[in-house]
Amino acid sequence: MDPQRRHELSRLLSRLDRLEPGETLPQVKDCRPVREAFRIGITGPLGAGKSTLINQLTGHYRQRDVTVGVIAVDPSSPFTGGALLGDRVRMSDLAMDDGVFIRSLATRGASGGLAASAADAADLLDAFGFDRIIIETVGVGQSEVDIAGACDATVVVFDPGSGDGIQAMKAGLMEIADLFVVNKKDMRGADRFILDLETVLGMKAERNRPHILATVATTGEGMSDLRDWLEEYFQRIKGNGDLEHRRSEQRSRRIRRAAQDAIVRKLWDTVPQEQVERAVQSGLPVKEAALELIGNFFPRGDVDG
Amino acid sequence: MDPQRRHELSRLLSRLDRLEPGETLPQVKDCRPVREAFRIGITGPLGAGKSTLINQLTGHYRQRDVTVGVIAVDPSSPFTGGALLGDRVRMSDLAMDDGVFIRSLATRGASGGLAASAADAADLLDAFGFDRIIIETVGVGQSEVDIAGACDATVVVFDPGSGDGIQAMKAGLMEIADLFVVNKKDMRGADRFILDLETVLGMKAERNRPHILATVATTGEGMSDLRDWLEEYFQRIKGNGDLEHRRSEQRSRRIRRAAQDAIVRKLWDTVPQEQVERAVQSGLPVKEAALELIGNFFPRGDVDG
Repeated sequence: MDPQRRHELSRLLSRLDRLEPGETLPQVKDCRPVREAFRIGITGPLGAGKSTLINQLTGHYRQRDVTVGVIAVDPSSPFTGGALLGDRVRMSDLAMDDGVFIRSLATRGASGGLAASAADAADLLDAFGFDRIIIETVGVGQSEVDIAGACDATVVVFDPGSGDGIQAMKAGLMEIADLFVVNKKDMRGADRFILDLETVLGMKAERNRPHILATVATTGEGMSDLRDWLEEYFQRIKGNGDLEHRRSEQRSRRIRRAAQDAIVRKLWDTVPQEQVERAVQSGLPVKEAALELIGNFFPRGDVDG
Repeated sequence: MDPQRRHELSRLLSRLDRLEPGETLPQVKDCRPVREAFRIGITGPLGAGKSTLINQLTGHYRQRDVTVGVIAVDPSSPFTGGALLGDRVRMSDLAMDDGVFIRSLATRGASGGLAASAADAADLLDAFGFDRIIIETVGVGQSEVDIAGACDATVVVFDPGSGDGIQAMKAGLMEIADLFVVNKKDMRGADRFILDLETVLGMKAERNRPHILATVATTGEGMSDLRDWLEEYFQRIKGNGDLEHRRSEQRSRRIRRAAQDAIVRKLWDTVPQEQVERAVQSGLPVKEAALELIGNFFPRGDVDG
């Protein structure tokens, strides 16, 4: 991608960060239709080695001349407004490569909003022609689950030496993983961890049972296996119709969500702030006060029924 | 509370569970205005001893003839639809007490919806005259943070013997706690855990620094201290205006949220399902397809601008 095109993409991504819910980007010119790129979600606890792994995986894709866009999602604490987790993609050796584009997404607010932003950013990278799009999330929680819902495949990375694994299993990551990567497999306890993981996964129906891959991202061990597994997986779900089904459901969810965001934005654009204050000061029960507010937007009886 | 009144409350809480967003309960008769009761959120990782602690705390309140309503929130996995965590309030010895009301809330769906339901349930218990309302949540995540936003005070309970403490600190519980309870303080490692906690909390401004209380809920050790600390805290925030401020902000958030829920419900009541399907099938970008959908609801230009 030439520098000018790169600059345009960068500018559009920045705009995306600042878009109000419901606001749309200007039509992107000279782009291919979205939804050709394979979208890979990579998540897992802090310190599992995700950044190193993404660095390596990107390099292995580049060896085959496949272009890669990386979106690193940086969740913010709702309280401090600052970054909750410090993990960042450090990919300096790829930064000079024209076939790689890396973007950190620091959207604040609800987890649903974060997932929507990540999906929108992925659409943009897709439209600009990147073949593979990697979305990295840190931590374990609802936003990871939501973002997995915007990907074609989800990879959950574990460090067998940390206690976070069990926590992750509780938090619903078991349900979203298509592939488990046990990174740092050279560490003590890794074999045991893999056995435990196999036991837990063994309880799932075979068709839905995620694969397990053991790697050492720092040395590159298992990285071409990771790329090859992902590519085979992509071909498989493309062939058996799963990909189309998954993407259609994702699209439905995203459109509904975007419509809701737009209508809510319209609501708060329409209802004057003083009226909200009055509702708060009133002695009315919460839901009645809320319906009073909407009364200006719709005839009361219309909403109430 | 007499059995008939109890039955009525129970029935209303059941209705609350099944309310559509935006739907209101029928007017509750013969109730005092809400917002007199002190609302205490109790959260923390699975296995920290929250249920035992709530059992004991409720008993200590009853010794002073203070009535207590307990709402136990049971998060459900978005994937399995089943319970994610098995912890439940076991309070059989209080079940026969007329001054105690215990309710498990098993609302599914978004964490925001769960917090709204918990707050609505607390309003009902409040209106039915309970003096103290305890909202118990299990696990560590956004819903706990949201529910804390519906309480006057938030207690975070830790088991010093588990590795979950550090995870909890990451997940934003540090920011919402007014009081930390290190339960099972008789266990190995408890002193060390408290020292670590003090170090971390020492970084916060003194005014916002949560108190730490060490307890052994199973033996009742520290339980009257817990009650007394909570009561003193309540009087303090009542006296210095913090309570009023906090509640006004909560009310504002809840009213806004309820208004949004109502408008979104209206949207999906209005837009026919076939139209949603057509939008999904269309080749339009997500946000444009969404605005098309809303077009039927509003004139297009009206929303778009």
